[in-house]
Amino acid sequence: MKRLLKMSRKEVEEKLVKLGKKILSEIESGKNPSIDIPIRSLSNIVFDEKTKLLKLGDKTAKRYFFNVAQAKSFMQTLLVASFCRDIVKEDIHTSIRDMYYNLKRTLPNSEENTFDEQAESDPIIVDLETSLGVLREQLHLIADRKGVVAGNVVIEDRGDEIDWSKLGSGGWSIPSAVEDIKFKKVKADFLLIIEKNAGFERLHEDKFWKKYNCILIGTGGQPARGTRRLIKRLVLEHNLPAYVMTDSDSYGWYIYSVIKSGSMALAHASDDLGTPSVKFIGLTISDIEKYGLQKSTIKATEQDLKRAKELLEYPWLDHKEWKREIKLMLQKKIKAEIEALSARGLKFLSEVYLPEKLEKKEFLP
Amino acid sequence: MKRLLKMSRKEVEEKLVKLGKKILSEIESGKNPSIDIPIRSLSNIVFDEKTKLLKLGDKTAKRYFFNVAQAKSFMQTLLVASFCRDIVKEDIHTSIRDMYYNLKRTLPNSEENTFDEQAESDPIIVDLETSLGVLREQLHLIADRKGVVAGNVVIEDRGDEIDWSKLGSGGWSIPSAVEDIKFKKVKADFLLIIEKNAGFERLHEDKFWKKYNCILIGTGGQPARGTRRLIKRLVLEHNLPAYVMTDSDSYGWYIYSVIKSGSMALAHASDDLGTPSVKFIGLTISDIEKYGLQKSTIKATEQDLKRAKELLEYPWLDHKEWKREIKLMLQKKIKAEIEALSARGLKFLSEVYLPEKLEKKEFLP
Repeated sequence: MKRLLKMSRKEVEEKLVKLGKKILSEIESGKNPSIDIPIRSLSNIVFDEKTKLLKLGDKTAKRYFFNVAQAKSFMQTLLVASFCRDIVKEDIHTSIRDMYYNLKRTLPNSEENTFDEQAESDPIIVDLETSLGVLREQLHLIADRKGVVAGNVVIEDRGDEIDWSKLGSGGWSIPSAVEDIKFKKVKADFLLIIEKNAGFERLHEDKFWKKYNCILIGTGGQPARGTRRLIKRLVLEHNLPAYVMTDSDSYGWYIYSVIKSGSMALAHASDDLGTPSVKFIGLTISDIEKYGLQKSTIKATEQDLKRAKELLEYPWLDHKEWKREIKLMLQKKIKAEIEALSARGLKFLSEVYLPEKLEKKEFLP
Repeated sequence: MKRLLKMSRKEVEEKLVKLGKKILSEIESGKNPSIDIPIRSLSNIVFDEKTKLLKLGDKTAKRYFFNVAQAKSFMQTLLVASFCRDIVKEDIHTSIRDMYYNLKRTLPNSEENTFDEQAESDPIIVDLETSLGVLREQLHLIADRKGVVAGNVVIEDRGDEIDWSKLGSGGWSIPSAVEDIKFKKVKADFLLIIEKNAGFERLHEDKFWKKYNCILIGTGGQPARGTRRLIKRLVLEHNLPAYVMTDSDSYGWYIYSVIKSGSMALAHASDDLGTPSVKFIGLTISDIEKYGLQKSTIKATEQDLKRAKELLEYPWLDHKEWKREIKLMLQKKIKAEIEALSARGLKFLSEVYLPEKLEKKEFLP
């Protein structure tokens, strides 16, 4: 799949209109109207060794109008497509929940609702994304926002010039769609992505991004799509290395894996959201001994260990360094949070741990 | 209790030092060292009719060193106080989790830990806050951040001048402590506080804050302390009216109640976090009929109804308008989300609903 997001608003609208016209012409010529939709089940998700990204395979299924089992979802697909065409045309964005409410209604002379709950409209959006080869951001549907960024970067967004180095203690709240942002000035040697908001605040207060000339991104847990896309754009368009810091546990490592290779659920969007060149700076299980954090570990739960075993099977974590760390965790049955480094002092993260890792280039692939 | 947050860093440090000196002098004069700590149980939480805020009453308890049941928490209190003194002096901020890790250790020649889990250190922080009459932000302990703001306001923060009207689609990410922010220019007629991030993005995209000359704040659910404090400061220091928009359900109304009158858990901080003058702009249960949203409601759960009954008992919601709304909910057993307004069109919120409410001054007290 080619770089999806280079498409203009006009082109996205045309894709939607084209879909509508195809259906119309099928109706007019007496055919059973249908839409081709890529299959998203596990059987059609592959790890692309070349790009190092999780991707959808080639299998598709047809959704027909004249098919008792498919008529409703066919109708729903067209409703969502028509809705998206309208908001793309009007150039407004909305949340997937707002869309659900907007489209929900009872069909005339029936007791049938277009949608009964949001769980019905959400997958239809992905159907459209994959079927048309566009992303929901391009359909003007937004996901929740939660990331924050600071650094020596000036951007232009909706006519405003925003200097990420001059936002005080706050930082710039990363919106759900970052496609229209223009980078005016990017003076940074690398990206540092940190899972915890508290870690972001600590490093931000120490002006770590200034001292080490980097862009600091706080994801607040699993990064939102906007944040993942921003990482990808900065890395790709400005050729920057990026390092990810998470808790030393299966969930933290999974966050890293999603930033790097994409996720199963969003396999169709990996090209735009996954950044294979990112490296893992910490926390590792080896760090616990190395930095004397033994007293600050937490006992791993059954769930942690189960997840760790799953990580062992991921082809994109198939490196001896990762295998060693994951096995170490399984063997010691412990985990540790970023905050554990505070046992060594509150500035240990910014003044010792990170500088040492960066200096020695001690990263996991 | 007087306005806590007017205290300087120096004064906060002195309070901590004074506590230490008091203990020292008690030891030197052979007394049993003790600390007075206000009681925070329900029996000592009162609704102050004059200020319209939830507050702590006058009851205090003494915590002694020579008391088998209290020796450990006495030790913990001094550890936290000493930690806070250090970070206040060094002028660095940290999260309560980092503090826990920093202070956790095994006492020499024993198997006793200073703290076994964070659930032990968290209440000690509140003990100190109430005992010294300072807030955790002043002790340089930060809570999680999550709010976002946009509007015609220029602030100064850590030497940066930040224009909230020039942050593109992003907005300013509200930090956990907003005490040191200086308002350089505040050109706004009112504050509009909205519970949902999606609602914030929608209104932000429509430049609602520009059209109606207001400051737009997105809380992302129950507002973080930093966001509540920012609301209070803007309202108080710039004499602005503030309107809150939440879902039409017990949880949304509870969020409103917390912004307005404070919460039980933070009764000691109401003076600084609660803003009694805020008004409720919507969503109400009456709105459902008024705006034809009947098809977009959700069935209220048992939990919703139980909470609604609790709200009926709150003295700070003891207004006939609120009673009517809550009873209407209990009777119809329904609730509705802000997004339900999208059933009437995506711009219905920004172009019809809010303008009408503002025009007619249709607010709940």
